[in-house]
Amino acid sequence: MAVKQEHAPEQCKVVDEGITRVFQVLGKRWNGPIISVLIDGPAHFADLRRAIPGISERMLSDRLAELGATGLLLREVTEGPPLRVSYRLAEKGAALESPLRELAAWAEKHLTDKPAC
Amino acid sequence: MAVKQEHAPEQCKVVDEGITRVFQVLGKRWNGPIISVLIDGPAHFADLRRAIPGISERMLSDRLAELGATGLLLREVTEGPPLRVSYRLAEKGAALESPLRELAAWAEKHLTDKPAC
Repeated sequence: MAVKQEHAPEQCKVVDEGITRVFQVLGKRWNGPIISVLIDGPAHFADLRRAIPGISERMLSDRLAELGATGLLLREVTEGPPLRVSYRLAEKGAALESPLRELAAWAEKHLTDKPAC
Repeated sequence: MAVKQEHAPEQCKVVDEGITRVFQVLGKRWNGPIISVLIDGPAHFADLRRAIPGISERMLSDRLAELGATGLLLREVTEGPPLRVSYRLAEKGAALESPLRELAAWAEKHLTDKPAC
């Protein structure tokens, strides 16, 4: 005998686990733009800062450390002088290229005006 | 006569404008998961709250208002009693299905462990 359903099916919805994980990373304001810039190739800290209007030095530094810890990017030091640090995507970061391009295309089509704040 | 280039090309990088716009929306922790749940169909406030572990009532309410203002979702009131409010994606929100599926597939493959906090 079937157990009597006490609730409608929509009450059983649970967010996809992959989506939850993705937005633990991309749901932080600057991570998407940082990865997006690095998709075009490695960049120095100053290049990244210049490429992303509005990001502070502290924010960029925190996000780069975090993306490094998550294994999405690699930090490379070139012995100097001057000593230079550059960042490039690890394989799993580079694999975001296709979904990010889709998101950019979506924005191109659907977010022509800046969203309301 | 060509103007002498004073800087390397990587210093001219600027983040894609579509990416900037996308992450003004999806770069907020809960927006991706909310949209993702609504892709499966309309949901009441309580269903959404249950579907997204960790979200507070206040956060969900703020994000829904914001996503509504951006035109990504619609709020529908069913006269009661009991009066019920449900949310469903507008066309441009629904158009996020494909990029979100790609992101979920990426997470499935590359984010098997929870990212470091």
